[in-house]
Amino acid sequence: LEIERLLEGLRQGESRALARALSLVESRAPEARTLLEKVFRDTIGARDTIVVGLTGPAGVGKSTLADALARKAREHGKNVAILAIDPTSPVTGGALLGDRARMDSGARDPSIFIRSMATRGHVGGLASGTFEALVLLEAAGKDFILLETVGAGQDEVEVAAAVDVTVLVLAPGLGDDIQAAKAGILEVADVLVVNKGDREGAELLFGQMSAIAGARPVRKTVALEAVGIDELLADTLRLGADRSGTASPERYRRLMEVWLGDVLAIMARERIPEDAWESALRELEEKKLTPYQAAEKLLEGKVKKESR
Amino acid sequence: LEIERLLEGLRQGESRALARALSLVESRAPEARTLLEKVFRDTIGARDTIVVGLTGPAGVGKSTLADALARKAREHGKNVAILAIDPTSPVTGGALLGDRARMDSGARDPSIFIRSMATRGHVGGLASGTFEALVLLEAAGKDFILLETVGAGQDEVEVAAAVDVTVLVLAPGLGDDIQAAKAGILEVADVLVVNKGDREGAELLFGQMSAIAGARPVRKTVALEAVGIDELLADTLRLGADRSGTASPERYRRLMEVWLGDVLAIMARERIPEDAWESALRELEEKKLTPYQAAEKLLEGKVKKESR
Repeated sequence: LEIERLLEGLRQGESRALARALSLVESRAPEARTLLEKVFRDTIGARDTIVVGLTGPAGVGKSTLADALARKAREHGKNVAILAIDPTSPVTGGALLGDRARMDSGARDPSIFIRSMATRGHVGGLASGTFEALVLLEAAGKDFILLETVGAGQDEVEVAAAVDVTVLVLAPGLGDDIQAAKAGILEVADVLVVNKGDREGAELLFGQMSAIAGARPVRKTVALEAVGIDELLADTLRLGADRSGTASPERYRRLMEVWLGDVLAIMARERIPEDAWESALRELEEKKLTPYQAAEKLLEGKVKKESR
Repeated sequence: LEIERLLEGLRQGESRALARALSLVESRAPEARTLLEKVFRDTIGARDTIVVGLTGPAGVGKSTLADALARKAREHGKNVAILAIDPTSPVTGGALLGDRARMDSGARDPSIFIRSMATRGHVGGLASGTFEALVLLEAAGKDFILLETVGAGQDEVEVAAAVDVTVLVLAPGLGDDIQAAKAGILEVADVLVVNKGDREGAELLFGQMSAIAGARPVRKTVALEAVGIDELLADTLRLGADRSGTASPERYRRLMEVWLGDVLAIMARERIPEDAWESALRELEEKKLTPYQAAEKLLEGKVKKESR
């Protein structure tokens, strides 16, 4: 079977098999579930993989920082992957081409696996898609994974549940810098980074970050010139060692809870026949039902069908 | 009953009743559903309310622009509300205090209703919470609603489904400005705004935006000095008139579909008894089940219970 060959390639750490498996997850193909069922037990929580989340506003240089960190981790003998999570419009259903081209360009070290992944749909798209990609990356032997996210919203906070170390990246010149980090992610970040540290305003921002960091490390980097990367990598390795799957059951439990919630929502929707969905939606549009009544009816309807 | 008094106050357009009703939605109180069921038929899709979404990266001046637009809309005799959606950490479960204090400060026109709302939880928190708040604002007679969101991720694209006109706000000096808007929102925006239009780089950004805008209006504003606000308000009123609930069934249908999906996910989770959830989670942690198997079991378990 094709899925068996794919599984074999994945376990051998072949980049092509990994890329194909990630595409299956991205497109929500049924084969993706089969694959995940097969590798699930050997991966998340069972290995010492360190997953580092890089988050922060657009324009602070997260991609460049991910590149620099990845190269340095390679020098330390790590098997490195960069996964860029791309929150995608339900309208187009695909990552913007320019961004994807940039991510997949050959300008990077070929021994570093790089992938940008679109997360689509409304319910649970982001979290479950991300977790499933991490399972596949681990199954392929990656032991240092950089997860890059865009923006500073609920998405990032959800992704933070899936990683071992969350790095919040800021840069000077973003207007009200503190405000840029206001969306809850500041509270869950483990390391604070001021990138573009050679620019005007970097010292001020560094001072502001240090004042609110508490016991957390605050680093200044110039990712383009690999300045400050050694220290940042050391932070992630040190914190990661204490928190990766095998070391931290609480973190692992939280991840499982979010993932289960997501999968449950997806499957609850899948179990509703399309004609029942359409008819509920029509009654909702005509205001014969409220959303709560419509959802209740759909869930009850399903129950009746199952117990026949 | 207290809920009847609240409903009466809401229909009279009392700010205090509206604030209380929004708090009920925010905290997911059961009374919120009762309230929504009662006003649902008279609101969304039944009136000519215009809902304008303001989105864009942090630091571009969205709040100041919302203020300026709101004041101008008041001059046009609109009943105006500003709702700021605050993507909140599941860790703290509350909006960051500083932001909230800023939003609720008395510095604004008291005839403009202002509220910042935290959206919590993982599944469907953002979309359904926002839609429900809009229903309540409409029920209280607001006919020009500014919906302010933070960040540039999936959140924004979801919120775009709920509004009549989406305004993407950018500002010069955000580093790679185009990149700031890459997360899908650029495709769904109806109007593009370069705020802080008196700053260095504003012309360049305005040129870039104009080049990709197609037929869409591109505006330059200085929100702090109310420059360019007349034109922007005119755009939103013109576009809004063609697209608000009564005028655009497709838009309304899309909103209903997202909302129904959200409510379905929330209710599917609620129907699972806590002990069944805990036991599935335990089996998942011990890797006796995969997430798909665990979710299947929970959904089946519920079925058996219902049909007894």
